[in-house]
Amino acid sequence: MPVSFTQHDVGSRVDRRLAGFLETWRAPVDDPDVEAAYRLLTDFILRGGKRVRPRLCYWGWRGAGGDDSEEIITAAAALELCHAGLLIHDDIMDGSELRRGRVTVHRSLAGLHHGPGAEMFGQAGGILLGTLSLAWSDTMLSSCGVEPHRLRAAHHVFDAMRTEVISGQYLDVLAQLRAGASVAEALTVIRFKTAKYTVERPLQIGGALAGASMELLESYSRFGLPLGEAFQLRDDVLGTFGSESETGKSALDDLREGKHTVLFAHAVRKASPAQLRHLRRWHGNPELTEERAEEVREILRDTGALAEVEQMIEERVHEAVTALSAARMEPEAAKALTLMADRLAHRTK
Amino acid sequence: MPVSFTQHDVGSRVDRRLAGFLETWRAPVDDPDVEAAYRLLTDFILRGGKRVRPRLCYWGWRGAGGDDSEEIITAAAALELCHAGLLIHDDIMDGSELRRGRVTVHRSLAGLHHGPGAEMFGQAGGILLGTLSLAWSDTMLSSCGVEPHRLRAAHHVFDAMRTEVISGQYLDVLAQLRAGASVAEALTVIRFKTAKYTVERPLQIGGALAGASMELLESYSRFGLPLGEAFQLRDDVLGTFGSESETGKSALDDLREGKHTVLFAHAVRKASPAQLRHLRRWHGNPELTEERAEEVREILRDTGALAEVEQMIEERVHEAVTALSAARMEPEAAKALTLMADRLAHRTK
Repeated sequence: MPVSFTQHDVGSRVDRRLAGFLETWRAPVDDPDVEAAYRLLTDFILRGGKRVRPRLCYWGWRGAGGDDSEEIITAAAALELCHAGLLIHDDIMDGSELRRGRVTVHRSLAGLHHGPGAEMFGQAGGILLGTLSLAWSDTMLSSCGVEPHRLRAAHHVFDAMRTEVISGQYLDVLAQLRAGASVAEALTVIRFKTAKYTVERPLQIGGALAGASMELLESYSRFGLPLGEAFQLRDDVLGTFGSESETGKSALDDLREGKHTVLFAHAVRKASPAQLRHLRRWHGNPELTEERAEEVREILRDTGALAEVEQMIEERVHEAVTALSAARMEPEAAKALTLMADRLAHRTK
Repeated sequence: MPVSFTQHDVGSRVDRRLAGFLETWRAPVDDPDVEAAYRLLTDFILRGGKRVRPRLCYWGWRGAGGDDSEEIITAAAALELCHAGLLIHDDIMDGSELRRGRVTVHRSLAGLHHGPGAEMFGQAGGILLGTLSLAWSDTMLSSCGVEPHRLRAAHHVFDAMRTEVISGQYLDVLAQLRAGASVAEALTVIRFKTAKYTVERPLQIGGALAGASMELLESYSRFGLPLGEAFQLRDDVLGTFGSESETGKSALDDLREGKHTVLFAHAVRKASPAQLRHLRRWHGNPELTEERAEEVREILRDTGALAEVEQMIEERVHEAVTALSAARMEPEAAKALTLMADRLAHRTK
C-alpha cells in the first residue's frame, strides 16, 4: 500500500528533521547538569510518540496541492516540539509517573538528584524544559522556509491552536475540582483540548502553508473536529481499558486522577445507586488498586458506557470521512486521511 | 528632560498596546472560570512591572536609526508578555507568595477554589497561564509589522534569548540543590538568567528590527552584558535589603529560598566561623524570621559583602557606559541608554 508507506515515511522524516534541529540547539551554558537536562529533553522528543500531528499537517499541505518537500517536513516537525512541551507540563500537572512507556521528564529530573529538594527540582526543571520545547516549536515553524505570506497565515492558525489547547487544558483541570462533569461538559473539554489541537489545526496549518482556500480549510474543520473527538474518546477508552505495554501509560492513571471523561460521565448517568457509590469512592482516589480498578471497569461495561462511547467513536469517524469525501482536495491526500481516520479511531496504543 | 519624558512615554505606550492586544484574545471557551483566569492573567500583565525590556528594545531600535513608530512599540510590548509568562512560572518554581506587591498568579488561582485540590489547581493553572503569555509574546512579535527579512533577524535573537534565559534559570534551580555556589558560579547564572535576557537581547531585538549592523549589535552586547549584571546585582541587594513596599516582594524570600547570589557568595568567603554557622543555619531556611534575617543582613554588611557588591555594580555601570560612548549610534538613543543605565543600577525598587 503506497499510502501506508508514505505515512510511515513522513514519521521517520519528521524524526530525522527533529534530530537535526535539536543537534543545532546545544546547551548555551557549559555545565554538565544543563547538558544532561538537554539530553533528557532530546530523548523525550525523539523516542516514542505517534507523530499524529505532523502527519496530519503533512497531509493538510498535500491536500491543498503542496508538493512533497522539505519545508512541510520542517513545519510538521515543529508541531511535535509543541506537543512534547505540552506533554511535559501536563505530566507535572497530573503528577504522572509514566509517559510513552518511560519515566516522565519531571520524575527523571527529580531522580537525578537526592535529598529533600529533589521533588521541587524535578517540577521546576520540567516546567523549564517544557517551555524550552514550546519555544523551539515556534523557532522551527518560523524557519521552515515557506514564503512569508503563507507562513503568516499558518502562524495565525498556530496561535489560535495554542490558545485553544491551553484553554481546553484549563477546563480539564477545572473539571477535576468540580463535583463532576456531564457528557456535554466533557465533550467541550475534548473539543478544545484534543479535537482542535490534534486534528483540525494541524491539518489547517499544513493547508495554510500551501495556500489552501478558505473552503478547503473549512472542509478540514468538518473532517478534523469529529475525528479529533473520536481520537480522544479512544484515548479515554485506552486510558482505562488499554494495555500498559502498548499505550506506555498506566491503565490506572485516569481513574486515580479522577479524569472526567465522557466514558465516566455516561457511566455515572446510567449507574445503579450501588454502582454509583463504588464509582464515587474509587474515581479520583490515588489509592485505587488494580483489583478495584477492574471492578470500576466492570461497571463501565455493565452500564453500557463503554458501548456508548464505542458507538460515539463510530459515528464521528463516519461523519469525518463523509465530510472528507465531499471536500475538493487532492485525491491522494483524501485517501491517506481516510486511512488515518480509521487507524486513529481504532488504535490500541 | 526630554529623554526622561520619552522613556516614560514608551512605558505607557507599551501598556496601551498590551491592553489592546489582550482585548483581542478573549477566552475561546465560553466558561466563567476560564474567563476569570484570562482576567487574572491580563491584570497581572498590565499592572506593575518596570517595562525595562520593552524600553531597551525601543532604544535599541532608535539607536540603529529606526524612527519612532508603532511597529517597535508592538515588538517591545511582546517582550513584556514573554517576561510575564516567565515570572508566573518562576513564582511557581520558587513557591513565592508575592509579586509586584500582589498575590502571585498561582496563589490567586488556588484562592479561587477550596478544598484539597486547590493547591495543585493553582500550580496547574499557573503553568498554563504562563505558557499562554509566552505563546502570545511570540504571536505579538511576529505580527509587529516590520518587514519579513528584519523580523527573521530579530526572531533569531529572540530564539537565542529564550534558550538562554531558560538555561540560566535551570542553572539557578540547580544551584539551590548544590552545596553552595562560588562568586564565579553565581556570575554565570546572572549572565544567562539576567544580563543577556534583560538587557543585551532586548536591545539587539530592537536593533535587528531596525536593520542594525553587526558592529552595532556587538556594541549592544558590550553595553548590555555589564549593565545586565549590574541590574541583577542590584536586584540581589534589593531582594535582601530592599523595602517590601517599594519592591513589591518580601525581603525575606531570597534568604528563605537560599538564593545563591553573588552577595551571599562573597559573605560566605569572608565570614568568620561563627558568622558562617549563622549563615548556613538560616540561608534557605523557610522558618527564617524577620529578626534572624536582620542578623543575616548584619553579617552581609560586616563581612564587607554588601560593599563589594556595590563596588561591582559601579564597575559594571562604568564599563557599560564606556562601551556605549564608543558605539556608533544615534546620539539621542545613546543619551537615553546612558540615563537608563544609571537608573537601573541605582534603583530602589
